Amino acid sequence: MAHDISGHLAGLARQVELRLPQLLPDLDQRPESVHRAMHYALTSPGKRLRPVLTLAVAEMFGTQVRSVVDLACSVEMVHACSLILDDLPSMDNARLRRGRATVHIEFGEGVAILASFALFNRAFELVAESGHRLALSRYTTEDISHHLATSIGTGGLIGGQALDLESRQEDLDLERLEYIHSHKTGALFIAAGEMGAMAADARRRDLDLVSRFAKNLGLAFQITDDVLDVTGTTEEIGKEAGSDGDKVTFVKLLGVEGSQLLVKELLQFAVDSLAPLGRRADPLRELAAFVEHRSR
Amino acid sequence: MAHDISGHLAGLARQVELRLPQLLPDLDQRPESVHRAMHYALTSPGKRLRPVLTLAVAEMFGTQVRSVVDLACSVEMVHACSLILDDLPSMDNARLRRGRATVHIEFGEGVAILASFALFNRAFELVAESGHRLALSRYTTEDISHHLATSIGTGGLIGGQALDLESRQEDLDLERLEYIHSHKTGALFIAAGEMGAMAADARRRDLDLVSRFAKNLGLAFQITDDVLDVTGTTEEIGKEAGSDGDKVTFVKLLGVEGSQLLVKELLQFAVDSLAPLGRRADPLRELAAFVEHRSR
Repeated sequence: MAHDISGHLAGLARQVELRLPQLLPDLDQRPESVHRAMHYALTSPGKRLRPVLTLAVAEMFGTQVRSVVDLACSVEMVHACSLILDDLPSMDNARLRRGRATVHIEFGEGVAILASFALFNRAFELVAESGHRLALSRYTTEDISHHLATSIGTGGLIGGQALDLESRQEDLDLERLEYIHSHKTGALFIAAGEMGAMAADARRRDLDLVSRFAKNLGLAFQITDDVLDVTGTTEEIGKEAGSDGDKVTFVKLLGVEGSQLLVKELLQFAVDSLAPLGRRADPLRELAAFVEHRSR
Repeated sequence: MAHDISGHLAGLARQVELRLPQLLPDLDQRPESVHRAMHYALTSPGKRLRPVLTLAVAEMFGTQVRSVVDLACSVEMVHACSLILDDLPSMDNARLRRGRATVHIEFGEGVAILASFALFNRAFELVAESGHRLALSRYTTEDISHHLATSIGTGGLIGGQALDLESRQEDLDLERLEYIHSHKTGALFIAAGEMGAMAADARRRDLDLVSRFAKNLGLAFQITDDVLDVTGTTEEIGKEAGSDGDKVTFVKLLGVEGSQLLVKELLQFAVDSLAPLGRRADPLRELAAFVEHRSR
């Protein structure tokens, strides 16, 4: 059964993979440099965990994948945008990401910044286009757009990134590190889950359950990244192993085993919040199992 | 009469000025650095031409300013965001803007980039929030959001900025220069006008007239910038006079007089498109007169 579900989730990821490049402008259209950088950033190999979460949640509440796939892709675009920014010289100054040169290394910094804005902008364009494919009664497309914006703003993803940037020279404690990652990573996971629920016109109560699940899943996922940076090889993790360097990470504060324990705990919280949804939430449980497996 | 109208337009600009800081997060809220940079960028002295255009158009079609002012502010936020980007070391590398240090000089590059994203994001959040204040039958808030995104994308503002960036080392001809500025500047002027018309539920035909007006006004405005860079003092133009340096500008291709002539011509096109709207379009004619006066 778990095998079938994991195959189904892989199928959702493939649908996202197929759809993503179709949603971008043609490569031979002006401005070619920015279009190429957008494709490069978006088709870089990735787990597509956020859009799969959107699709799995929407399916769980009875909506067909094809009416939500563009919305799911919009979440992945915001994520790709945030990775471009994260790697910039003025941020993490990273040269390698997912096994390839980062976008500013490949295309130059100006083009990288424009491509990140263009992906971000395209995400909002897609949300606005999604409305007519959805049968909403509890929410409007504006609500979805607003949710996405709020998760990105200075109270969300940008806020986490900013605190990360401010904290470079400081000794981080666990509270601050959790703040950074629950915003930098967690906020978009929450939006991914909630957008799936809203697109399926789920009840507010169910949306809250999904939100709690996504929040804990996102933070757990971020911690597995820290663990893999220490335990994985460059090949496995697609960036230089140990590249976190002197950055404060969960592993530095809690050790590998302590971090793995925290992942387990967060995923237990995540799965607990699914109880009222019964068996139909099994795909989400499988996502949690995937993240846990990754941390070992 | 013209005096009254120009006083009225100044009043609209003041309403925008008052509203802008209210729409941003508190300065003492995390992440303080990004919030301060957002305020700094947005409260920098400016003509507020784009939001005034939105308000003047909405008023012309019978909508009250107070229900459209946040939408107008969202346009100014996108504009402020584009100025931060334009000044970055990887773009124009400018140190002075509107008489003050540019955002990355004042706050560092990382914070500047995050602030520009946060302003951009806040703009879409505001559009999503505007819906309930508008009585729309021909359009939806999604349409407005979609229009804004399309004007920003690689077929609009970002496309113009990208071609500008690509063209640094090349000899630009007039066609390419017009392409750059009709996208970099013109697209957001069009969106500003169209958003005002949509917010007022204007007929499609009227929206098209506004669109043609805004397109020509925007390009004319950009050319006056080039003229002022040569004829103005640093104090008048708020950046270092002659700072366009070896950039290809309209003045370099057409001379000062040739550029002034083109401005006059474009503004004539702009005003011509208003004819079917009669006297109620007088505030827009006054905007055109303001731009023409600026170029002399």
